[in-house]
Amino acid sequence: MLRIPFDEVLAQLASILRKLGFSADRAEACARLFAEATCDGVYSHGINRFSRFVATIRNGSVLVDAEPRRLAAHGALERWDGRRGPGNLNALAGMDRALALSREHGIGCVALANTNHWMRGGAYGWRAAEAGFIGICWTNTMPNLPPWGSAERVIGNNPLVIAVPRAAGPVVLDMAMSQFSYGALEGYRKRGELLPVEGGFDALGNLTRDPASIEASWRPLPAGYWKGSGLSIVLDMIAAMMTLGRATHQLSHDPEFECGLSQMFLAMEPAALGGEPRTEEIAGSIVASLHSAKPARTGTRVRYPGEETLRIRAENRELGLLVDPAVWAAIQSM
Amino acid sequence: MLRIPFDEVLAQLASILRKLGFSADRAEACARLFAEATCDGVYSHGINRFSRFVATIRNGSVLVDAEPRRLAAHGALERWDGRRGPGNLNALAGMDRALALSREHGIGCVALANTNHWMRGGAYGWRAAEAGFIGICWTNTMPNLPPWGSAERVIGNNPLVIAVPRAAGPVVLDMAMSQFSYGALEGYRKRGELLPVEGGFDALGNLTRDPASIEASWRPLPAGYWKGSGLSIVLDMIAAMMTLGRATHQLSHDPEFECGLSQMFLAMEPAALGGEPRTEEIAGSIVASLHSAKPARTGTRVRYPGEETLRIRAENRELGLLVDPAVWAAIQSM
Repeated sequence: MLRIPFDEVLAQLASILRKLGFSADRAEACARLFAEATCDGVYSHGINRFSRFVATIRNGSVLVDAEPRRLAAHGALERWDGRRGPGNLNALAGMDRALALSREHGIGCVALANTNHWMRGGAYGWRAAEAGFIGICWTNTMPNLPPWGSAERVIGNNPLVIAVPRAAGPVVLDMAMSQFSYGALEGYRKRGELLPVEGGFDALGNLTRDPASIEASWRPLPAGYWKGSGLSIVLDMIAAMMTLGRATHQLSHDPEFECGLSQMFLAMEPAALGGEPRTEEIAGSIVASLHSAKPARTGTRVRYPGEETLRIRAENRELGLLVDPAVWAAIQSM
Repeated sequence: MLRIPFDEVLAQLASILRKLGFSADRAEACARLFAEATCDGVYSHGINRFSRFVATIRNGSVLVDAEPRRLAAHGALERWDGRRGPGNLNALAGMDRALALSREHGIGCVALANTNHWMRGGAYGWRAAEAGFIGICWTNTMPNLPPWGSAERVIGNNPLVIAVPRAAGPVVLDMAMSQFSYGALEGYRKRGELLPVEGGFDALGNLTRDPASIEASWRPLPAGYWKGSGLSIVLDMIAAMMTLGRATHQLSHDPEFECGLSQMFLAMEPAALGGEPRTEEIAGSIVASLHSAKPARTGTRVRYPGEETLRIRAENRELGLLVDPAVWAAIQSM
């Protein structure tokens, strides 16, 4: 693996995006989200995903200069049209608007229709938490997951992000509704590893820990069997109903045409009700109770969601971003 | 099993609650929530739970005449003190207040500290959905679940309820963060059944499908392993931080003293942004796509969360509520 300085990656990606028609500001912001995903260790949705993102621009799924537009508002709740713009820029705008609404009303909610793949969902949770807010957001996806009780993929793995601010390091959960996201399956396959637990069905309908056979069968397990399946269904319903946008079953099965998604962004301000610094003490006490729990295996420790992020971020900032030589060569030739 | 008419159950439970010091109105409302849980088929948190509820009144955990009080407000967000009142009445009040805030602001949120076990969480989701609102609520619980990576129970199974309105029948997800709630484990054990999938660890640390050995070890599996564990952690953090109330690790390990919980109630109005009747069509199309998915086993059909509720409710209303003779005898002697 190569180690490329963050700023070099950023400049390279931004340059490609400008050539594709992005304004300078939007190219920089969009490239930054890709670089930050890799920097934070979310390799599946960072630089490794960039070529596929470019393909969705070239095939017309993503419109580079489309900016979201507000369609309706009622107090703390707004509905926006993403106009098929770049999914990560749209999502960042959605969370930023939810933060603004939350500042005014204590809680804020943006329903964003007609948008595109947001890449690393955790980015929008980190955005909220680093501003001192609780952030909750989710997206629907193409039909890539069979519901519990069927082998046919008619629901999405609909990632859900829940972020909690904390001075010593935000707690950020970023989870797809499948036991393993397709990005995670790809990672295990590329590393030549089996999954740590059964993650789906093979072509014969048997449960398996082999990532490649699950990618081939398109039958990952919902996390918690019927529970993840049910959660996926209600998240899709809320997103489509509140945005008046597309539901999972109305989206293309082709990843390069997974566009026109529906997303929700909620933010709440712990400080709105005058709770600080008590809120910080509470967050710290919960983390301390996790860290003091006796580990199942010696030499390990219970971790909170996102716990490793700041360490990985600092390391990659210092040493450079980890990039596969073939991926980097492809990007440099764009 | 006996079949007792709904109204007879209601009158009997309300009579006991009046003897315990409830006002007539509150006795009726509290008794109704127990009767409705059984009527809707949630047997673990209906009449079967009543004796334990009475025990928490007699031991001073639940204060029968305490009503929730608002402590702070900022627009669509409010913080309330449950004052250790009856958990189901407090939770109903919390959701009703979130609905009122949602009517005014599009979305509403109530953070309720210092409350008690809400019994059947789905009740508050149904309350929202039957009023035409999306309802989202969760509670923390006593430490009853080991986080992923530990055998020590320091997190809660923190039930999460997400309800979506739909004229032909609301979609209501009511899920604990363990693969099987303790109520579900109890149900399987009483029916003499094994769990359909591995649900936790036995005393030796082996995964098992035997409900009794999981109840004995207090080591149920988080739903989706690390995913349910992470979700439990962030739900507890948000509830405790927004309410300034207790976190799971600060609660008693004794179920009869599981009091002073922290809960969140959110409501959103799909109609607030002028979406109807489109929202209803979207909900219907999602349900239709699930129903048309090819079932994994012939003779079955993919179901949405809560799909059976209206049928069970109608049946139990007509035939009478299913009550264990010993449970009913105990209640009649109170």
